Amino acid sequence: MADPSRKKKQAPSARLPKGFQDRSGDHLKALRGLCHQLRSAFDAYGFRAIETPSIEYSDAIGAFLPDVEQPGGGVFSFKDDDEKWLSLRYDLTAPLARHCAAMGQHLVLPFRCTREGYVFRREKPGPGRFREFYQVDADIVGAPEGEADAEILRLAFDAYEAAGLAPQSIVARISSRQLVDALLEQIFQHKPDETQRLRVLRAIDKFERLGEEAVALLLGAGRMDKSGDFTHGASLDDKQIARVLDFLKVGGLDHRLEESPVGRAGLALVRSVLERCRGLGRGESQIVVDPAIVRGLGYYTSFVFEVSARGLEPFGALGGGGRYDHLIGRFDRPDLGATGFSIGVSRLLAAMEAGHTTSSDTRRRQGPIVITVLDPERFGDYAALAQRLRRAGQAVDLYVGSGGLKAQMRYADRISAPFAIIQGEREVGKGSVIVKDLRDDADQASDNETIKSRGQARQQEVSLDALDAYLRRLNEEGDRA
Amino acid sequence: MADPSRKKKQAPSARLPKGFQDRSGDHLKALRGLCHQLRSAFDAYGFRAIETPSIEYSDAIGAFLPDVEQPGGGVFSFKDDDEKWLSLRYDLTAPLARHCAAMGQHLVLPFRCTREGYVFRREKPGPGRFREFYQVDADIVGAPEGEADAEILRLAFDAYEAAGLAPQSIVARISSRQLVDALLEQIFQHKPDETQRLRVLRAIDKFERLGEEAVALLLGAGRMDKSGDFTHGASLDDKQIARVLDFLKVGGLDHRLEESPVGRAGLALVRSVLERCRGLGRGESQIVVDPAIVRGLGYYTSFVFEVSARGLEPFGALGGGGRYDHLIGRFDRPDLGATGFSIGVSRLLAAMEAGHTTSSDTRRRQGPIVITVLDPERFGDYAALAQRLRRAGQAVDLYVGSGGLKAQMRYADRISAPFAIIQGEREVGKGSVIVKDLRDDADQASDNETIKSRGQARQQEVSLDALDAYLRRLNEEGDRA
Repeated sequence: MADPSRKKKQAPSARLPKGFQDRSGDHLKALRGLCHQLRSAFDAYGFRAIETPSIEYSDAIGAFLPDVEQPGGGVFSFKDDDEKWLSLRYDLTAPLARHCAAMGQHLVLPFRCTREGYVFRREKPGPGRFREFYQVDADIVGAPEGEADAEILRLAFDAYEAAGLAPQSIVARISSRQLVDALLEQIFQHKPDETQRLRVLRAIDKFERLGEEAVALLLGAGRMDKSGDFTHGASLDDKQIARVLDFLKVGGLDHRLEESPVGRAGLALVRSVLERCRGLGRGESQIVVDPAIVRGLGYYTSFVFEVSARGLEPFGALGGGGRYDHLIGRFDRPDLGATGFSIGVSRLLAAMEAGHTTSSDTRRRQGPIVITVLDPERFGDYAALAQRLRRAGQAVDLYVGSGGLKAQMRYADRISAPFAIIQGEREVGKGSVIVKDLRDDADQASDNETIKSRGQARQQEVSLDALDAYLRRLNEEGDRA
Repeated sequence: MADPSRKKKQAPSARLPKGFQDRSGDHLKALRGLCHQLRSAFDAYGFRAIETPSIEYSDAIGAFLPDVEQPGGGVFSFKDDDEKWLSLRYDLTAPLARHCAAMGQHLVLPFRCTREGYVFRREKPGPGRFREFYQVDADIVGAPEGEADAEILRLAFDAYEAAGLAPQSIVARISSRQLVDALLEQIFQHKPDETQRLRVLRAIDKFERLGEEAVALLLGAGRMDKSGDFTHGASLDDKQIARVLDFLKVGGLDHRLEESPVGRAGLALVRSVLERCRGLGRGESQIVVDPAIVRGLGYYTSFVFEVSARGLEPFGALGGGGRYDHLIGRFDRPDLGATGFSIGVSRLLAAMEAGHTTSSDTRRRQGPIVITVLDPERFGDYAALAQRLRRAGQAVDLYVGSGGLKAQMRYADRISAPFAIIQGEREVGKGSVIVKDLRDDADQASDNETIKSRGQARQQEVSLDALDAYLRRLNEEGDRA
């Protein structure tokens, strides 16, 4: 009978779309370990986990993405069967706002919560820039400015420390969106429209990465990048551009902004957060005021910060966040102030791996023990042995392929098995097995000579009764090594 | 300065699209715990974790879904910027096939791997039927029929046991798609086309749930369900329908199928898997041959099985799988036999919760300790105390809201804090704090009287020096209780 999958009109290609990737092996293990460590920090601060779905109504989460000006840009959207627009979430903050608005009076405030999961960006992928990536977030909803923002900053330091960064290497650069708003008040006669305001914000956001000259272009007529893509400028005149660049180059707190109420509010907020984070064992140099910090996302209202690590500067911000007081008020609900931060774990891991700050034990053979099948007729006995060892806490791979012993030993080697177990006729008679120790080195040997010499070097006949204890002892030795 | 989110042309609604849900609290904790337990079983069998992205090229994963006949039906799809069709994965098996085809010679065979994550179905949501749900899969790729299928079945038993089902309650019903193919050979003069074949398969798939009468309609002219939705029938005549129903009602192995090669192959496979699973401590009654098992997904080729649990019958299949030998051969690659299974963890959890098979400790207060803020001027001291307790391993919520002590105690109660810590002027002078024990009962008290009386009932002044040890002792008492 024909199988549907056999009708090969035209074989599909086994490719992935650009910006998406498979994850496996040590990389996936490290990512999961990292998330586990971050969760431990969130637990210590009493943040409760919630999950929101990957798909939302498009209007419910909006599109507050950086570097995107067309409506709905940067977001994957499609129509539902009832013709309503759905979107894949592009972050974990906009869905949190929707969740809080939906919970209404049932929300216990302040609501400290943590979320994690994949988010999606419909944008140009590049090296290390994916269209699906994993975020881990923590937020406090329904708490006024000040203490909650400082608590988020404390948590950020502890979370990165739990992730494995050296405590003294972690740096938070903080600012307030209000400072830029005060600056815009100073340089504009009339309020700029929202597009122009966002273009100024995004130009400032690039100061650290692209430098003064590029930012001057982005504030003015616009800029063509190396790939030929053109970014529209904010259309400021030369005098305005000079003032913005001056603001950025002064660094720290620009006291000329004291003139306006919004400037005073921003300066006061930044000072108060600094004050509140003192005396927590973080060096003064670890929390730095930096007016170039604005964060690209459109929803931040005042406090903003980014975290980076000394020694890992080329990776830029390893996460960041801030206060978004109107994102819940977008719904037909009263405003509910909120503050939080977000960690892109893939970038954090990439940075840590590059900086050798992960405790890598990739040299150890971490695969399962392989039980080889010398005599297929006796498969049932091999299966029973596998079950016995599994119940005793060992990870065991029972060979189910069709290769001979040589192929099986190559298999054991390639999956990083620490041991292979072989039982031939002689051993069956004696109630024993041969345990081959494959732990000599972690390189994957593909040539037969290596496998052969390694196999002969260390093998031991062990009685079935003593096998559990023998393997446990070998494992313990390995752990100590 | 105007904030973009303030422009409320029309406030969006804080609703979720149908078939999607937020997850939190004990439910989310239980889901994560369940996945953790399943992972431990996969580890014991040496299955390596991989992750594939949520988005794939539509043609790469196809659309082998049950109950869907239009091309691409049941799958969320949309066009990429380059006009190519993308789809959200609808299961974790089709992406695995794409992954294996892409890996080509680099794949170490047999490849035992496990995947988990959300999958998406564009179909009518219903009670307990979501359009995004979490699956956990395990598969062996590149191993011939027989041992690998038995290994998957053994793993399935151990995985459900690790999840918390009583070992003797787990039942696997097994069959082979070949049996239905042999049956179709017998009742058709000419080969049925693929649509008709799938309609027969899907009608058979519903035998257990809908019964004989409904299946007769689905095999014949079609059936209208209670909601008025019409399902096209397989257009069999009465004699053909009678033969199919007879096949289903005989149960077990229908020896009339021995006549054809495909029937003999199917019967031999089912017998060999039964044989291989003997002597593993599973009662004979736990592995049952059931010709009504076909699995709805289009890609299975021979061995198929479903797992259910005695006592949890109303929940139907808690997972299942089988062999799909041509799914990798769809790509311009040689066929690579594969077998595996999939667990829908949400349904498994729902079944376990309904059957009280989860070890629920929801009565315990598992929230963090709350440090109250009696004097906002002294917030820095409270923050330092919070940090000290966190470093000592306690989960601590430092109150950052604007409520008074009464509101703070209500907050502590509602987030299930086991203790609240209060430090007034008197205690500051003495270097002590008041520890209120909130563990009396786990109900969320909302009236002030309850909170007041509870608060007065158990409180203790403790010196700051002795606080860590005091809390640890209380926690240990709680664990023992």
